[in-house]
Amino acid sequence: MIRLVDLDTIRQAYRRIQPYVHTTPVLTNSSINRLFDANIFFKCENFQKAGAFKARGANNAVILLGRASGRRVVTHSSGNHGQALAFAAATHGFQCTVVMPSTSQTVKVDAIREYGADIVFSENTLDDRLQTLNKVLERTGGILIHPYDNDDVISGQGTAALEMLHQTRRLDAIIAPVGGGGLMSGTAIAARSIYPGIEAFGAEPALANDAFISMQQGVVQPPNPPITIADGLRTALCERTFHYLTQHGVSILTCSEESIRNAQRLLFERMKIVVEASGAVGLAIVSDNREKFRRRRVGVILSGGNCDITSL
Amino acid sequence: MIRLVDLDTIRQAYRRIQPYVHTTPVLTNSSINRLFDANIFFKCENFQKAGAFKARGANNAVILLGRASGRRVVTHSSGNHGQALAFAAATHGFQCTVVMPSTSQTVKVDAIREYGADIVFSENTLDDRLQTLNKVLERTGGILIHPYDNDDVISGQGTAALEMLHQTRRLDAIIAPVGGGGLMSGTAIAARSIYPGIEAFGAEPALANDAFISMQQGVVQPPNPPITIADGLRTALCERTFHYLTQHGVSILTCSEESIRNAQRLLFERMKIVVEASGAVGLAIVSDNREKFRRRRVGVILSGGNCDITSL
Repeated sequence: MIRLVDLDTIRQAYRRIQPYVHTTPVLTNSSINRLFDANIFFKCENFQKAGAFKARGANNAVILLGRASGRRVVTHSSGNHGQALAFAAATHGFQCTVVMPSTSQTVKVDAIREYGADIVFSENTLDDRLQTLNKVLERTGGILIHPYDNDDVISGQGTAALEMLHQTRRLDAIIAPVGGGGLMSGTAIAARSIYPGIEAFGAEPALANDAFISMQQGVVQPPNPPITIADGLRTALCERTFHYLTQHGVSILTCSEESIRNAQRLLFERMKIVVEASGAVGLAIVSDNREKFRRRRVGVILSGGNCDITSL
Repeated sequence: MIRLVDLDTIRQAYRRIQPYVHTTPVLTNSSINRLFDANIFFKCENFQKAGAFKARGANNAVILLGRASGRRVVTHSSGNHGQALAFAAATHGFQCTVVMPSTSQTVKVDAIREYGADIVFSENTLDDRLQTLNKVLERTGGILIHPYDNDDVISGQGTAALEMLHQTRRLDAIIAPVGGGGLMSGTAIAARSIYPGIEAFGAEPALANDAFISMQQGVVQPPNPPITIADGLRTALCERTFHYLTQHGVSILTCSEESIRNAQRLLFERMKIVVEASGAVGLAIVSDNREKFRRRRVGVILSGGNCDITSL
């Protein structure tokens, strides 16, 4: 497999998607800085179109397909990638089908329908999801846009870090959540190409530490049982993202569920922003590894904000 | 009484306070725009230092006092102005006393204490608050910084609109909440001096429509019974702010309590931001007056974010 993502493909992706996505702000908060004795820069991808960084990768991948003219993109996702692909498809004139587990939250189903995408439900097992996906691909002749095992998607995700590094002065470290590893791959490639000395940390819940073990053992691990509240991070790496994380010197750090909840609460109460559990793990990592970040300039990507009021 | 606030004093205030306050972002949201068929620009003062626009006026007033050297500033406030003054005092080396009703929420008391200010409790009647305030002023020799009946405070509040107009292209209308009228005065003076054609709307809950009636009858009305959920807007205008609102052609619009709650929810769910009830009335006004804002470019100042998780 040829793996092509580099600073150039990320810069090209940025020029390509910029008319269709938000330039999200970088916020700082002095009381959180005091609490952790660090200088933290929060990249607010929770404010991104469709509520998460996923809009970046989905737009890049869809634009690169060229002319729409009746063509269809397809994916399986219970969460943000499904919304992002439905949004990107609607923006660029493609049809879209999203395979979702029948147990998905109504609010997420509705959000995807609002963008005009079709939904096909599957059982809530990986096997049945993939079977259903394959049937849809066969039946519709659609094009699969995988949430992270796709270089165009990864180049798009890398634009969040690229943009952030334009918005801040030099950072000592950058932290992004790790589920399938698409965001973290793009983040590490962008950040370490621009500043080779920057440390790139992948943030994982301890209850979903498959990437941590994968990197330690040098072999991609299967996903953990899906119990962490950070539901967007329950997936495992693929060979592609494992390769990028290894090649670009990413270290994985883990955090407790309690720290994720506390991070969400701090972001709500002190910064007045809504961040889903999966999106708040970067701050939970700072909290659970204070010595590592003390007195340093740390970029934290808050990756998404799609959660309902009651989950907080 | 000489009233001195104009575009120059607001510009001077802006240069003065800029090192001490946040340049808050202006956010847009396409799903909210679709919902109201308008082009809305949200000025996020909920992200401001100490959680509200009040940090602007408090800093301007405190800096203009000159050398601190043991001097004390004093105010009465159950809410954001108290926090803002405590923050400004701490920043510039002043001592600070805030008179608060003994029924104030613990979280607000704690926030003021965290900035190192002293708190003196009063009964929850306006009479007792003013008596207590006067006693504190006598005893300490402190300087009163009124939350809105003060031109330096009003010049500071006007910097939110000034900054917003730098961040957006020309707006057709600008909306800010009206409690005592300090923010609205500064907003109207800044906006209409820069763009004489802009419409300036003051946003009031229908349950606290004293400014609406004051403007209609040409006489400052007393406050309504304090029942609106927008607790920061329960106060009434003073002669000073009434003068500015009249002089600068402000129209007052009112909204229902339900629309305030819905606005808070939209801001949370669609924009992923936390806005207190008083801070969300601008959007509630758009919702309750749709024809007025249809297809127009509307600036909405989201004035504060200080609310706890359970109030949503």
